[in-house]
Amino acid sequence: MGLLGGGVIGAGWAARFVLNGSDVRLFDPSAEASARAARVLDDARTAFQQLTLAPLPEEGELRIVDSLEEAVAGVELVQESAPERIELKRGLLAEGDRAAPPDALICSSTSGLRPSELQAEMERPERFCVAHPFNPVYLLPLVELCAGVRTAPETVERAGAVFRSVGMQPLVVRSEIDGFVADRLLEALWREALWLVSDGAATVEEVDDAIRYGAGLRWAFMGTFLTYRIAGGEEGMRHFIRQFGPALEWPWTHLTDVPELTDELVERIAEQSDAQADGRSPRELEQLRDRVLVRLLQALRAEETAAGATLAAWERELLGAAAPTSVRHIPPEWVDYNGHVHESRYLELFADATDALLGGLGVDAGYLEDGGSFFTVETHLSHLRQLEAGDRVRVTTQVLDSDEKRLHLFHVLLRDGEADPLATAEQMLLHVDTTSGRAAPVREPVREKVAELTQQHGSLPRPERAGRSVGVS
Amino acid sequence: MGLLGGGVIGAGWAARFVLNGSDVRLFDPSAEASARAARVLDDARTAFQQLTLAPLPEEGELRIVDSLEEAVAGVELVQESAPERIELKRGLLAEGDRAAPPDALICSSTSGLRPSELQAEMERPERFCVAHPFNPVYLLPLVELCAGVRTAPETVERAGAVFRSVGMQPLVVRSEIDGFVADRLLEALWREALWLVSDGAATVEEVDDAIRYGAGLRWAFMGTFLTYRIAGGEEGMRHFIRQFGPALEWPWTHLTDVPELTDELVERIAEQSDAQADGRSPRELEQLRDRVLVRLLQALRAEETAAGATLAAWERELLGAAAPTSVRHIPPEWVDYNGHVHESRYLELFADATDALLGGLGVDAGYLEDGGSFFTVETHLSHLRQLEAGDRVRVTTQVLDSDEKRLHLFHVLLRDGEADPLATAEQMLLHVDTTSGRAAPVREPVREKVAELTQQHGSLPRPERAGRSVGVS
Repeated sequence: MGLLGGGVIGAGWAARFVLNGSDVRLFDPSAEASARAARVLDDARTAFQQLTLAPLPEEGELRIVDSLEEAVAGVELVQESAPERIELKRGLLAEGDRAAPPDALICSSTSGLRPSELQAEMERPERFCVAHPFNPVYLLPLVELCAGVRTAPETVERAGAVFRSVGMQPLVVRSEIDGFVADRLLEALWREALWLVSDGAATVEEVDDAIRYGAGLRWAFMGTFLTYRIAGGEEGMRHFIRQFGPALEWPWTHLTDVPELTDELVERIAEQSDAQADGRSPRELEQLRDRVLVRLLQALRAEETAAGATLAAWERELLGAAAPTSVRHIPPEWVDYNGHVHESRYLELFADATDALLGGLGVDAGYLEDGGSFFTVETHLSHLRQLEAGDRVRVTTQVLDSDEKRLHLFHVLLRDGEADPLATAEQMLLHVDTTSGRAAPVREPVREKVAELTQQHGSLPRPERAGRSVGVS
Repeated sequence: MGLLGGGVIGAGWAARFVLNGSDVRLFDPSAEASARAARVLDDARTAFQQLTLAPLPEEGELRIVDSLEEAVAGVELVQESAPERIELKRGLLAEGDRAAPPDALICSSTSGLRPSELQAEMERPERFCVAHPFNPVYLLPLVELCAGVRTAPETVERAGAVFRSVGMQPLVVRSEIDGFVADRLLEALWREALWLVSDGAATVEEVDDAIRYGAGLRWAFMGTFLTYRIAGGEEGMRHFIRQFGPALEWPWTHLTDVPELTDELVERIAEQSDAQADGRSPRELEQLRDRVLVRLLQALRAEETAAGATLAAWERELLGAAAPTSVRHIPPEWVDYNGHVHESRYLELFADATDALLGGLGVDAGYLEDGGSFFTVETHLSHLRQLEAGDRVRVTTQVLDSDEKRLHLFHVLLRDGEADPLATAEQMLLHVDTTSGRAAPVREPVREKVAELTQQHGSLPRPERAGRSVGVS
């Protein structure tokens, strides 16, 4: 690949190609280009290592070269990512066209300049199209492909195949317009955002929060049209537009020049929306939406960022307030291919019982924040009878023993109203100072409560299955 | 809680409150309200079971009532979610105000009507504010709070505390404007989207794709201002605005009425952006962005939707080009509220290793259909070191012993490339005739393979942790 321009976008392209096994030559007259490309490749490498388990191909070679000619000699694809100045880009593309092999593709990363204008000085304009990526180029899959008046149809097809092979999602723009599709949408939102700050209605952080805690979570997987189709319920898009069309006249943005909702336009939107839904009912789409939102919230929780931080804070509250034992329902999704509940779910039930007990002993949000926590170091599970979906179950917990750093528990899982155990778990918990990462004595007031409970439970009979080890004989 | 209106939003509120342990009375004259509320609660219950491992409080009671008076009697909060018609809402709020206890909060879910107009007919307007949620209300954390001219400041504070306690993220809107903050941004994007379809520049699906494969992934956790700050590099927001300010004059959206970038406005944006970044360098923000994007892409891959489907397709290509591997990735959704992988996930990894071993021994779909299966009856887990999200791990499995009905295994979980175990599991499996539900001898050809493997593994040293029991001393 021959890359012209090594700013954030050019360096991102370099990283995506190199990590997909292509050799890259990059030309950029700036003194910082080389360091930037190395840094971005480093970041991309870290990201790819986390991203996938699939074996990556041997990395391509990244070479920073001193001339445009050297960058494009013998390549399959020339990708221009210079600053958004039409004369600059037009000149680079014409030069690249002259120096590159005649069958090479030539693409521009422009965010919105028209391909017809960019290809104006090229000798072989038919092999040129816009390929507009999004930052970070090595992680975001979207690439908008847009043909100019002199672009050959097969050029866009060939470009699509190249970008798909490096994990991207090409979107072919149907007609040549300034800003293509994505940046028109981004620009509309951006201009309104500037108004909000300009009017003093919100700070930049509040504008960002208004997106990332709400609609932004949906936009990660579902655009506005599909979202509104769901909002329209069984009657779908026609109903939604009928209901919310009048709001277009309201001063809800500074953008007051709105398209007229003619019957023809409503019909077009409704038909295209039907095609997009592809037979999926509003119900199915709702359920998909919820499943994906749950996964996204969990992903964000892992970094305790944005909505994930909100979720984590709520969970800490719940944990602080948990009542000791409560009856639970076995949800249908816990059933495995044998029609039984997966063994790891038994441990999930027992671990929840442990959490509930610890909550009752004063291991709350404040205790955790101060760096005290119990970690499970050993568990012995016995499966005696089978759980089924829909069962109502409860766990009883007995403290077998404790010392200053350890808590030894015995759980019994029972179907509600029955006395015959479904399963048992014996667990050893170690108290840890999470700051140092080492075992440390339990702190007050938890320590006293643990001692009290241990004494109370000391009078209970020792469970028959306590102290078992696994063995054939 | 007393809810007025049980459409999608009202039903979503009901579900969020009920699952957080509050009793809810919902008044809606529509015949469908009851069925809708039940269905939404059902969906929300499923979502919450997936969402968190924290013990949820005992569910509140959801009652559909026949009058507004019954809905609001004795409640702490009245939440109105009627259709967006000012007279209707104004009337309901005035009635609710008369019937509710004098110290109850009264809120409206309006997406954009001004609180000053909504509170116009209330006797106690000081306890009213807008609390605007986003669909699905039980999953999206954002709630915009907006005071009217007659709202008391403590009303917004009290509302914030109530919504925070049910896992939401309140955003206080500084000045009373139509559409508040979020819907102004959404509306700007929506109007431009309608233009794109109206102009034939894109279909509704293409508009959605232009968001969800690109900027939408960032918007799930990082708004436009922070994104652009990163794009501005070391020089931050001032540099970005200087560089891209001129583009505001370009016809990149139909929204051409733009704020003037006065020095004062640029300075305000830059200062607010500094406050938002809170000392984090562009480099740190970039790395945060990449880490979160990786987690989001993986979350989407789990549902093979949007950018996750693109990722999965790319991985299949890579996998097709290489040998399979048993190394596994720890997905972000496995991380619990402590930042660690939940103990039940360790057992999930070990159970998968058992399944893989059984598959290799000939326990396939046919064997299962014929009524033969191995069930785990006992497991002893030892947690030695901690797993982290993104770790690449593998499990080694040793057959310790077997007889005609039993298989005794020892698993070791290792981080890829390391020899020091993260955890071990000793398991006893019992062979069962699933038709009779009783233990039964292993059948051919599995029996012979089990015997062979047991003999082979017999020469391996016995693991140090085999045969352990749990105990303090």
